[in-house]
Amino acid sequence: MTTTAVTHIASLVTNDPSLGNGTPLGLIQDAAVVIEGDRIVWTGESSKAPATDNVLDAAGRAVIPGFVDSHSHLVFAGDRTQEFNARMSGQPYTAGGIRTTVAATRQASDEQLSDNVARYLAEALRQGTTTLETKSGYGLTVEDEARALRIASRHTDEVTYLGAHVVSPDYADDPAGYVDLVTGPMLDACAPHARWIDVFCERGAFDGDQARAILTAGRAKGLVPRIHANQLTYGPGVQLAVELDAASADHCTHLTDADVDALGQGGTVATLLPGAEFSTRATWPDARRLLDAGATVALSTDCNPGSSFTSSMPFCIALAVRDMGMTPDEALWSATAGGAAALRRTDIGRITPGARADLVLLDAPSHVHLAYRPGVPLVSAVWRGGERVE
Amino acid sequence: MTTTAVTHIASLVTNDPSLGNGTPLGLIQDAAVVIEGDRIVWTGESSKAPATDNVLDAAGRAVIPGFVDSHSHLVFAGDRTQEFNARMSGQPYTAGGIRTTVAATRQASDEQLSDNVARYLAEALRQGTTTLETKSGYGLTVEDEARALRIASRHTDEVTYLGAHVVSPDYADDPAGYVDLVTGPMLDACAPHARWIDVFCERGAFDGDQARAILTAGRAKGLVPRIHANQLTYGPGVQLAVELDAASADHCTHLTDADVDALGQGGTVATLLPGAEFSTRATWPDARRLLDAGATVALSTDCNPGSSFTSSMPFCIALAVRDMGMTPDEALWSATAGGAAALRRTDIGRITPGARADLVLLDAPSHVHLAYRPGVPLVSAVWRGGERVE
Ligand SMILES: [Zn+2]
Ligand SMILES: [Zn+2]
Repeated sequence: MTTTAVTHIASLVTNDPSLGNGTPLGLIQDAAVVIEGDRIVWTGESSKAPATDNVLDAAGRAVIPGFVDSHSHLVFAGDRTQEFNARMSGQPYTAGGIRTTVAATRQASDEQLSDNVARYLAEALRQGTTTLETKSGYGLTVEDEARALRIASRHTDEVTYLGAHVVSPDYADDPAGYVDLVTGPMLDACAPHARWIDVFCERGAFDGDQARAILTAGRAKGLVPRIHANQLTYGPGVQLAVELDAASADHCTHLTDADVDALGQGGTVATLLPGAEFSTRATWPDARRLLDAGATVALSTDCNPGSSFTSSMPFCIALAVRDMGMTPDEALWSATAGGAAALRRTDIGRITPGARADLVLLDAPSHVHLAYRPGVPLVSAVWRGGERVE
Repeated sequence: MTTTAVTHIASLVTNDPSLGNGTPLGLIQDAAVVIEGDRIVWTGESSKAPATDNVLDAAGRAVIPGFVDSHSHLVFAGDRTQEFNARMSGQPYTAGGIRTTVAATRQASDEQLSDNVARYLAEALRQGTTTLETKSGYGLTVEDEARALRIASRHTDEVTYLGAHVVSPDYADDPAGYVDLVTGPMLDACAPHARWIDVFCERGAFDGDQARAILTAGRAKGLVPRIHANQLTYGPGVQLAVELDAASADHCTHLTDADVDALGQGGTVATLLPGAEFSTRATWPDARRLLDAGATVALSTDCNPGSSFTSSMPFCIALAVRDMGMTPDEALWSATAGGAAALRRTDIGRITPGARADLVLLDAPSHVHLAYRPGVPLVSAVWRGGERVE
């Protein structure tokens, strides 16, 4: 197999604390990485790199692991520009919200939906995201949810069944009936196409008991739970996530001390989604409080056309540093290794021998520039599975 | 001369309120633009576009005027990553600040400084900035300030003499002596290379009387005043700007009602620089208050390695909408026509016959997406003076 070395990396983030400077990022200065096939086979000081078939000189730039975006909603159609514009212009806007997207998604062809997923995945890849989870949740019928998951599966392995996004408008008068559907025929149709099951546990969506029923049913079908928890209000989501050993509790914006303790002591990752708070002018989640309690924190985009239409992990890093109390090092870790933990993956989010060769070359001497230079596209090259894709 | 048409533009921002929907943006739906040489010669509905030599089909995407970034500090050397990292990590950092950059800039060769300006100009161009003002201010000696302006003039026509950035460390005990230098020999050496004169009117930099002396001296040498005003504290900067009919008062973060009234009634543009508030975790300037008072508002990056190391006008737009009370329409206007007003230019910041052909094609159906999709690089093509540069 062909070997390629990236040499003279000013600063290499390995996310292996046994390497380099001994911090969680395992920073190595003047480093090299060797790729063979789809794997990383060697990391270390550039001067000690083994001979390889190809060499790319990073010339004083930084290399980081590809971003792991563990929370997005890309199987949708339509656009909510007008709704956003009205909200940000202080004008009333009564139409639709999520129902607008549900209606447009149901009407779209398979090809339109697939093209949309491909488009936003490519956009994310250009910004350094090499692993991206995505969800159903804009179909809300047996057929439309299963279709969304089949389509998502063409593009990523990390597919989440979110029939319990909101109660379908078709069941507005019978929410219990909708839970029966989500835990019954819809689950049967969807489980073969998904790895994860998710529920929006929130006032106006699903309460704690409903969420528990939905996630438990999914687990019985082999799906692993994750939860939209404590986004808009305090609630039972986080405690339920820890109780069920969910991979991740996502949003975590309104947390009691007991919630923070539970995340600090349990095995559930706290995934923070600052794009949502940015685009809805909401209160920031407090990453510092979670980190100080010992929680594992991930950062993701929540990319969706309603509340967070960004696909930019660098943007999320800049917000996390500015407004959520994370250091630049912590934010980088959470956007790579943290996302991997939220997806229970050990083969990504790190640059160490045996890991998948997902690398991002930055047009900057340090990963700190992702926060220091907010909004500037700094991604210079991307490898995914050893293949140069940007 | 060759003519080129860009056709089927989903939404064209002309900034001519007599066109299209009659708002300040003069939006035309399904529009076309015709370029001849370096000028725009025709705008209107796509179906009515005249025949041209070349045609580019925008295929449902939006076109906006190139951004006019009327405030940056690009003639510098060195890097302040460590300082930023320490500030954002809550660690003490006693070294340097602006003095670090002054020392590095003085030591750099002409070629290094010129390469640095070229690099950040190219980076800004990729993000849609087709006109960019830049300043001296990291030399603070007669020779180093004149050198900075000569170098800046190689890259842009909008060059500002900012010998009065801070009192030079060489004059720490004699600030009055430094003002004499700035208004005397330094001004003589610099005036031939600049269009504008600027002063940092702030506690710890230059007070109102010093600022008046500096700007008045510059005006006598043919330079037009602009002021760094009311950034960190309340102060006399804004009133002085209006009194001297400065082109722009920049920052405007701490304003009294009298300051707002002065800007609302005078001819001085209020230039807001949200990148600085973002990167220093400072209070946002209140654009809404200024707009409601009738002020002309511009948005700019303040790109510099200390307090705002972004070159991204889309990022500034997203912040202005989220945190400064601007609508997406107002923010777009301020980042284009507003910047042109702050530079007293009528040939840029608009897409109308006779204007310079500075256009940005967005990978989005509307300019609203610059705020709706924060952090996402949406610039798909850029023309400057009729030439396709990206
Ligand atoms: Zn979500
Ligand atoms: Zn400035």
